Amino acid sequence: MSSPAVTYARQNHPRFLKELKDLLRIPSVSTLPENKGDCRRAAEFLAAEFTRIGMEHVRLIDTTGHPLVYADWRHAAGKPTALFYGHYDVQPTDPDDEWLSPPFEPTERDGNLYGRGTCDDKGQVWSQVKALESLMAADGKLPLNVRVILEGDEEVGGEGIAEYVASKPADLKADFALVCDTELFAPGLPTLCVGLRGMIYTELEVRGAKTDLHSGMYGGAAPNPFMSLAHMLAKLKDENGHILIPGFYDDIIPPSPEELKAWKSLPFDEEHYRKTEVGSRTLVGESGYSVMERTWARPSLDVHGIPGGFIGAGAKTVIPAKALAKVSMRLVPGMTPAKAFALYKAYVEKITPVGVDVDVRLIHSGDACLVRVDNPYIQAATKALHEVWGKETVFIRSGGSIPIVGDFDRHLGMPSVMMGFGLPDDNIHAPNEKYHLKNFELGIESIVRFLEEAGK
Amino acid sequence: MSSPAVTYARQNHPRFLKELKDLLRIPSVSTLPENKGDCRRAAEFLAAEFTRIGMEHVRLIDTTGHPLVYADWRHAAGKPTALFYGHYDVQPTDPDDEWLSPPFEPTERDGNLYGRGTCDDKGQVWSQVKALESLMAADGKLPLNVRVILEGDEEVGGEGIAEYVASKPADLKADFALVCDTELFAPGLPTLCVGLRGMIYTELEVRGAKTDLHSGMYGGAAPNPFMSLAHMLAKLKDENGHILIPGFYDDIIPPSPEELKAWKSLPFDEEHYRKTEVGSRTLVGESGYSVMERTWARPSLDVHGIPGGFIGAGAKTVIPAKALAKVSMRLVPGMTPAKAFALYKAYVEKITPVGVDVDVRLIHSGDACLVRVDNPYIQAATKALHEVWGKETVFIRSGGSIPIVGDFDRHLGMPSVMMGFGLPDDNIHAPNEKYHLKNFELGIESIVRFLEEAGK
Repeated sequence: MSSPAVTYARQNHPRFLKELKDLLRIPSVSTLPENKGDCRRAAEFLAAEFTRIGMEHVRLIDTTGHPLVYADWRHAAGKPTALFYGHYDVQPTDPDDEWLSPPFEPTERDGNLYGRGTCDDKGQVWSQVKALESLMAADGKLPLNVRVILEGDEEVGGEGIAEYVASKPADLKADFALVCDTELFAPGLPTLCVGLRGMIYTELEVRGAKTDLHSGMYGGAAPNPFMSLAHMLAKLKDENGHILIPGFYDDIIPPSPEELKAWKSLPFDEEHYRKTEVGSRTLVGESGYSVMERTWARPSLDVHGIPGGFIGAGAKTVIPAKALAKVSMRLVPGMTPAKAFALYKAYVEKITPVGVDVDVRLIHSGDACLVRVDNPYIQAATKALHEVWGKETVFIRSGGSIPIVGDFDRHLGMPSVMMGFGLPDDNIHAPNEKYHLKNFELGIESIVRFLEEAGK
Repeated sequence: MSSPAVTYARQNHPRFLKELKDLLRIPSVSTLPENKGDCRRAAEFLAAEFTRIGMEHVRLIDTTGHPLVYADWRHAAGKPTALFYGHYDVQPTDPDDEWLSPPFEPTERDGNLYGRGTCDDKGQVWSQVKALESLMAADGKLPLNVRVILEGDEEVGGEGIAEYVASKPADLKADFALVCDTELFAPGLPTLCVGLRGMIYTELEVRGAKTDLHSGMYGGAAPNPFMSLAHMLAKLKDENGHILIPGFYDDIIPPSPEELKAWKSLPFDEEHYRKTEVGSRTLVGESGYSVMERTWARPSLDVHGIPGGFIGAGAKTVIPAKALAKVSMRLVPGMTPAKAFALYKAYVEKITPVGVDVDVRLIHSGDACLVRVDNPYIQAATKALHEVWGKETVFIRSGGSIPIVGDFDRHLGMPSVMMGFGLPDDNIHAPNEKYHLKNFELGIESIVRFLEEAGK
């Protein structure tokens, strides 16, 4: 089924693509101080477009980081309100020499658009903007009320938007959020993400001697914080991927039998995943759970780095005075960051080896979240996606965290429709990021039809 | 008992100290490529001084690393030949912010000279040079034949000198070596070191996925090399300090009952050592062995650092593709580096966790060694030290490794007199390295008197 807005979108698609390329040329790398001005330029580019297409109350909102972009259109009396969310900032481009075309010169190859931010998240943000334009231009109005909040700090923790959501919930009040920052489970397969893992990110500091010591003189008598850390880390998770923190698994709400059954029917080739996505000798993790269960519905624990000590080339015979491990845990529904951290901290203190002192610090955390698939907006999305893609929508989860989704739930009491159009091989956060051109096109149509359905 | 050379040394001491400071200002950090030129500069500084004081055949000898400095004076017909050994390279200075005065700006405080290399080993090398100058200036000749070989790679494994000793033994042929790179057991207590631990320094590289992965997406399925490394390290040594490598302890030759008895009579306060030298909550290590046994006569295993992964401030949710541990083991008489490494490598391969690949690399190694105390040069040294310090010499071992001492034994068939003047709290390899000014002075006199005795 088509609609005037879909027809408008198809007719204007070449221009939409050209505009997206202009947005992609702005190197809005949020983590690099030298790109601060570019981040603001990207925000202004988007604000100007919102004004041009007829959105109202368009403004930049300053934060401790890069500005938020706000816009709204609220003239659909009696209709629900959608809050559009996306981010205009991008990841750094290093290693630059692995890009086949320049990261900030969007280039079409083989049905894809290559460049930093094509998929994560400018291409998807632009799909949202062009869906709004199509509806406004074809119908003279939107089928429901819309607020838009875009951020420029997603890749660096999103503190600015989190503070804004917490402190000004009334300014963003809506019935549901439309989050376009996820991916299709497989090419051509319409997908809604309905679950995210939460996390706690911690630092584990171990201190032994008062100063660095010579391992010849003191080896055998002085505590070695790296060795102590190894003993502690080995006791946090066994070699089979089972987390050993007492009580850690107690509160987990497992997926329903229906959800597990649905996951089993997803087109997933574990060997292909191992080879092309992970590239390791074997996959690891808890036995008795599928890859999807392990990455979506079971907590995990990873060490990200162990700064301190001697890290140069060659040899230095030092017993470092201290060592630090960056350790994070992914949490699943039922678990809370506060309890997970308390269990972890108590256990770490219990397993601290003799001779060293340990500090455990929480760096940041986010709640796990689960969206009920029987809510009307998910139903509307499913209907729209079926029409545009010609297939039944699959419901998946993501092992990652989108903290803003938890914030929307906690502070605004609304569910999120996570409708994304990336592909698993789009190389987000890596060289040669791409966005499938057909997905850019169908993404716009999907959002148009979703809004039309949700406004009914 | 004094001698004209001792008198000369005392009269010229202020100049000797000023010259040492000039040598210390050269940042000859052997492990840093950017200091390559400085290492050569330090070598040239020493060569020029040997020429100035009347040594002959002075030359730099190029190696795969930094140059060796050679000099000799061989006109004492019928007298034995001494081979002086020391090193002009120094350890890196990090962490720089812990130094109270700049590491390469030698600074006097409280009777000590602070700076990188003051004790290890430029201060002691300069004592050797100034002892030679004092004898030459006061007597117009030396009391025995002297060769000098100084290296600039001691802190990075000393490959250059090892190759030279192995390939050109005739060029260094002598009756004994005088190695000045050790310490007094306690302030004011003349000490000869008669045993050294050997070592193997290794890198343990663990590789998991083909590229860094997002810990949200892949946590629970992708191997984490840091976690694998923790499991492996925990299996190398238990929390009681016992090394778990099968066969590792098999060949150890324990100290004699007499030596153990002598160690028991050394002035050693374990609680004072723990508090002031180590500064840790408790000491660690194998139960049933004293601190001296653990650090001198038992092997040890230490981790020096674990480069790779995310080491910045804050949080990055990466599962690193690889991790690397710098691991070394100290060996004791009876053990050989070749066998220890083979046992370690075989065991590491056996305990490699599923999902990762491991490479074990030997970075460098050195033999343990033991000197007989009844040789005539040790007797001459004992006599000289008694005169200068007014006390009986104690015979100790060192937990550290001086690989060249093993090479001298193996390739030149000669014993080493390890006469050093550092103090246990001199912070070698650490911030605020120092050398006690009185020890610099008495060190020169000790060497002068030792040569006079050995030439009798």
